[in-house]
Amino acid sequence: MTATTDAVRRHDPELRGFASDNYAGAHPEILAAIALANGGHQVSYGEDDYTAHLQEVMRGHFGPTAQAFPVFNGTGANILALQAASERWGAVICAATAHINVDEGGAPERVAGVKLLTVPTPDGKLTPELIDREAWGWEDEHRAQPQIVSIAQTTELGTCYTPEEIREICDHAHERGMKVHLDGARLANAAATLGVPLRAFTTDAGVDLLCFGGTKNGLLFGESVVVLNPDAVRGVPHLRKASTQLASKMRFVSAQFEALLAGDLWLRSASHANAMATRLAEGVRAVDGVEILYPVQSNAVFARLPHEVTERLQKRHRFYYWDEAAGDVRWMCSFDTTEADVDGFVAAVAEEMGKHK
Amino acid sequence: MTATTDAVRRHDPELRGFASDNYAGAHPEILAAIALANGGHQVSYGEDDYTAHLQEVMRGHFGPTAQAFPVFNGTGANILALQAASERWGAVICAATAHINVDEGGAPERVAGVKLLTVPTPDGKLTPELIDREAWGWEDEHRAQPQIVSIAQTTELGTCYTPEEIREICDHAHERGMKVHLDGARLANAAATLGVPLRAFTTDAGVDLLCFGGTKNGLLFGESVVVLNPDAVRGVPHLRKASTQLASKMRFVSAQFEALLAGDLWLRSASHANAMATRLAEGVRAVDGVEILYPVQSNAVFARLPHEVTERLQKRHRFYYWDEAAGDVRWMCSFDTTEADVDGFVAAVAEEMGKHK
Amino acid sequence: MTATTDAVRRHDPELRGFASDNYAGAHPEILAAIALANGGHQVSYGEDDYTAHLQEVMRGHFGPTAQAFPVFNGTGANILALQAASERWGAVICAATAHINVDEGGAPERVAGVKLLTVPTPDGKLTPELIDREAWGWEDEHRAQPQIVSIAQTTELGTCYTPEEIREICDHAHERGMKVHLDGARLANAAATLGVPLRAFTTDAGVDLLCFGGTKNGLLFGESVVVLNPDAVRGVPHLRKASTQLASKMRFVSAQFEALLAGDLWLRSASHANAMATRLAEGVRAVDGVEILYPVQSNAVFARLPHEVTERLQKRHRFYYWDEAAGDVRWMCSFDTTEADVDGFVAAVAEEMGKHK
Amino acid sequence: MTATTDAVRRHDPELRGFASDNYAGAHPEILAAIALANGGHQVSYGEDDYTAHLQEVMRGHFGPTAQAFPVFNGTGANILALQAASERWGAVICAATAHINVDEGGAPERVAGVKLLTVPTPDGKLTPELIDREAWGWEDEHRAQPQIVSIAQTTELGTCYTPEEIREICDHAHERGMKVHLDGARLANAAATLGVPLRAFTTDAGVDLLCFGGTKNGLLFGESVVVLNPDAVRGVPHLRKASTQLASKMRFVSAQFEALLAGDLWLRSASHANAMATRLAEGVRAVDGVEILYPVQSNAVFARLPHEVTERLQKRHRFYYWDEAAGDVRWMCSFDTTEADVDGFVAAVAEEMGKHK
Repeated sequence: MTATTDAVRRHDPELRGFASDNYAGAHPEILAAIALANGGHQVSYGEDDYTAHLQEVMRGHFGPTAQAFPVFNGTGANILALQAASERWGAVICAATAHINVDEGGAPERVAGVKLLTVPTPDGKLTPELIDREAWGWEDEHRAQPQIVSIAQTTELGTCYTPEEIREICDHAHERGMKVHLDGARLANAAATLGVPLRAFTTDAGVDLLCFGGTKNGLLFGESVVVLNPDAVRGVPHLRKASTQLASKMRFVSAQFEALLAGDLWLRSASHANAMATRLAEGVRAVDGVEILYPVQSNAVFARLPHEVTERLQKRHRFYYWDEAAGDVRWMCSFDTTEADVDGFVAAVAEEMGKHK
Repeated sequence: MTATTDAVRRHDPELRGFASDNYAGAHPEILAAIALANGGHQVSYGEDDYTAHLQEVMRGHFGPTAQAFPVFNGTGANILALQAASERWGAVICAATAHINVDEGGAPERVAGVKLLTVPTPDGKLTPELIDREAWGWEDEHRAQPQIVSIAQTTELGTCYTPEEIREICDHAHERGMKVHLDGARLANAAATLGVPLRAFTTDAGVDLLCFGGTKNGLLFGESVVVLNPDAVRGVPHLRKASTQLASKMRFVSAQFEALLAGDLWLRSASHANAMATRLAEGVRAVDGVEILYPVQSNAVFARLPHEVTERLQKRHRFYYWDEAAGDVRWMCSFDTTEADVDGFVAAVAEEMGKHK
Repeated sequence: MTATTDAVRRHDPELRGFASDNYAGAHPEILAAIALANGGHQVSYGEDDYTAHLQEVMRGHFGPTAQAFPVFNGTGANILALQAASERWGAVICAATAHINVDEGGAPERVAGVKLLTVPTPDGKLTPELIDREAWGWEDEHRAQPQIVSIAQTTELGTCYTPEEIREICDHAHERGMKVHLDGARLANAAATLGVPLRAFTTDAGVDLLCFGGTKNGLLFGESVVVLNPDAVRGVPHLRKASTQLASKMRFVSAQFEALLAGDLWLRSASHANAMATRLAEGVRAVDGVEILYPVQSNAVFARLPHEVTERLQKRHRFYYWDEAAGDVRWMCSFDTTEADVDGFVAAVAEEMGKHK
Repeated sequence: MTATTDAVRRHDPELRGFASDNYAGAHPEILAAIALANGGHQVSYGEDDYTAHLQEVMRGHFGPTAQAFPVFNGTGANILALQAASERWGAVICAATAHINVDEGGAPERVAGVKLLTVPTPDGKLTPELIDREAWGWEDEHRAQPQIVSIAQTTELGTCYTPEEIREICDHAHERGMKVHLDGARLANAAATLGVPLRAFTTDAGVDLLCFGGTKNGLLFGESVVVLNPDAVRGVPHLRKASTQLASKMRFVSAQFEALLAGDLWLRSASHANAMATRLAEGVRAVDGVEILYPVQSNAVFARLPHEVTERLQKRHRFYYWDEAAGDVRWMCSFDTTEADVDGFVAAVAEEMGKHK
């Protein structure tokens, strides 16, 4: 593109790291889709041709009942979904590590008004037994009523539910009158790991509604609430607007999702990111003194290192502690991570570990 | 751009209308800026180089105290600003026609928790006298406390405050302990109309904080809360996250704003849109039986037509009733409206009016 | 009662005024009911014998579908009712003078999350025509959805709807898919004015749910949400608790309501208060220069006086301006107002008016 | 009292149990205070002589900075206090067993908008170490900001902090910029257990604000927020109204508190209830097979029994499971529990245990 702009490139487009998959930019195919969707006028607020077509694309992946509601970001998607599937007096059962619990600044409570009933888990995954720790008190007005079970696929710890595990959770929740929300900020990574279609562990497993993460899968921005069971929700369009998540030029969110989902970009990108994480985990596992913490089932690697090694490493590469007291760190791969990036980082880990002790 | 994408162009990029300035797409210079900012990794959630630089750009326009907080959309910007400048028991005085009152799905009440104290106005503009209709009841716990005066520049009726009018409002509000919020969804259009720098009718007039509209000024998406008086707000970063308005790949919002504001794109686009509205108003005013309703001081034209004419015209061009009972309609111009678009529309109006009676 | 207490009488029990009907204390029959209900243990939170019996009492007045939910105060009752009958994206059409709009500190917006769509009225009373000013925008996600019409009987201006007027409003609202909430802070006064049973202008007129005011009818404290149409609400018990309005020792609210409603205490007290207001209005109307402002149809008298007269009178008797700019004042009578109280006040008004000019 | 009433006594005033201290009615001295405060007119909404005097009474107990804000109930008191001492983006650290977490229907989240950061404890008591599990993430916008540490005295498990323990918590919280809220639903029971003045473990220990429970201490209804550190709060009067907790006839709440606190009624009642709990624990501890679960430091006894025994016992006496899976039950004593009540209940426990195995 040769169009002039008063903006200036201010960063090195060859520099990549392992701090977060949202440090990456947008996939070039996504920018191409935006350029295609640009020009001329399209009805705003979702009445455009791209958003109409997105419904077909989503039904192709999730089945004929699916309805997509594009929004801006993950917190917005979750807040919208939780409101749509609960009453004003509702509560949500989730893992203590859930993004809605630890990383959304209290938005579920403040904006959606729901109480979170959190359960400690060994690996970020709920089970029927874990759900039952909080699934009680029906009809008791003193207890915020559990109305939603919220799981993340993949989880915040990079682990991945099998379709059967999700089906069990859905059956269990439905038997108790609860709905199942799936936070799919990294939904594509799960499909890549499982090697099954998206609907195998969502619609077909009984999930009522999900948030499909686009940003971490290579979009500029944009997520989509996808309602799989229309009977499980009320008022989604109204709630989207009233929760500040209605995009005026929605064609640009929808066109990005079309670029992602009409073909296999979503899967290519996720598979690549997963492969890079596996390569990273294997590389680092071979370094003496580094412990890999959870099964590597997506694009995340959690490791435990000596604090002084972490701190020296952080001077060379930005990344975050996951649990500073324990010495746990998180490394994320993305669609644009290269084998050379991984190998260089593994070498750095090995080098810094070598200086230790 | 020759990158392939699985997305398909689904609309006619040469088709434009007068329904809304957010029917337009993004200015090509904006897409160029996004492409420049793409590639490589940048720290997410606003710690990137583009957002850092945006602070300088904003200070250049609004003075050394200005702080920019990019967000997704206008409702989000307003909700954030209103929370930041009020207490939990606060109320906001605004025109009955204000966007926050009529077009945000109740988000100010639901998400920000503020009560709106609305005042009817002849032209969308508040005055000290109109403010005083609701500026009372201090210390009375039965009355939600007026803590913010919210004005829009330009207003929802396309009218424009002079810098002096805004200064009077700010002085009046400040004397009563209230802060002034300016909804600048069309801030650039106001500057273009007034022919003065942005700060002349904002910072220099005493406005405490504003929402700078990017979307209607040619961005893909993106607005920015700009705090002019840091003493007037608390907790903006926390409130932005907790109100679902924190973008992870914020570099792409900030780079768009840089493209808009580092040079004169903002002013070129707004001046053009304004000029097209003036051309449209002049053209239509010459048609017998059409009444132009307010001073045309931005990119909006409000007109009163016979209902049957409007309905025939709507079959040819999409646009909205503003007040269906009265027969009032609204026509908006945007950065990409052409003289030919205007002349064609004027001809259509004339033709349909000619069939009437 | 001869029980000792460390508390001391700190006021003159013979001093009464016209400032507000909640300046009065509790009717002696109410205190007697509390004493009867005291002693021993009763299940808390409404599972007691008094609350069970209250259901029968309420059904006697409002018909077989009525369900009573005792709460603490009027704001709490209204907030509970508005939530129970609306969705999260709902709005409430009410008179601009409605208590929920002007006297509840923004609680409807903050706690219930509803937007109020207010309509100016000449006399505090809505009509189908006035409702239609805000009853529009169905399905438009940009507009908070009108789901409830809220009327007050009697109104904040002391006026009283006829049963036919309420029926028209209910029919009109129901045809548009809205429910009707009636704020009955002074419901008993309305029945006394109209000379009809309570159900004639509530259940039989189509009202869906109401707030029955006890405090201004001689209770110590206590109001009751009464659901007349169970299909119009959801989750009342849960919402009552989650809105801080669930009394633990509920037997004492219910026993007060039994004392009020099992016999005719409610009607005796209201009729007396109304009669005193009529006597006051007649007395004052005879004083040259005083204007009575609205039809006196309950226990309230609104009058317009010269400011200096009001201020001198306020030094002798506490009462409030209703509209200070206009010189409008409000005088309220209560169950314990005596004829001598009224006559003395009328004499004071006459005396102070006599000094004027 | 010989006043007639249409209400009828519907319960056996000699029947008492151990299910909850709010199954009890009001202390006769409290009813006497209400009768004294009745009659005549008093300014409503707290501008009465009883509420004015209550300030002096509270200052006598809590020191010269104390300010009392009477409200209706415990949930209302907590919600008010949490809002007054936090920002819109705040979170509250509390024990997982805290009443605000498990028994208030989600009101803290829904109405106050705060997130609760809960910590498991062995005995309901927080410590600096336990607080530190959640006291982190300052300045991180992704984390709701810990601004309040909330403790209960006595705790929901009937345990009691020493003044030193509370001082340590307050020092720890204050060093980290957090305020300390004390839920004193059973504050009097703590003072009775500790044998120290109320201020020894509140004001003097550094507590910023507390909720003084009246209902469980023998009031008809009524609690009071007591602000000890005025710098720790903002907007209490406004928040009280906007949270539906402003009583119109406030004199009757204040007079009850005067009766409770001007002399020693509060301490007599609490000491008696505590003594009955001790008697109950001792009696039951002697029964083979019953385990007493926590130190008995107030009016609560927690015990573990075989389920079948509990169920038979519940047919004779109403009481609640605390943790049904574990077989834990809770028995509460109140101001009106008699030694004979206790002895009879102990005998019943012994009898039912005797039938077991």
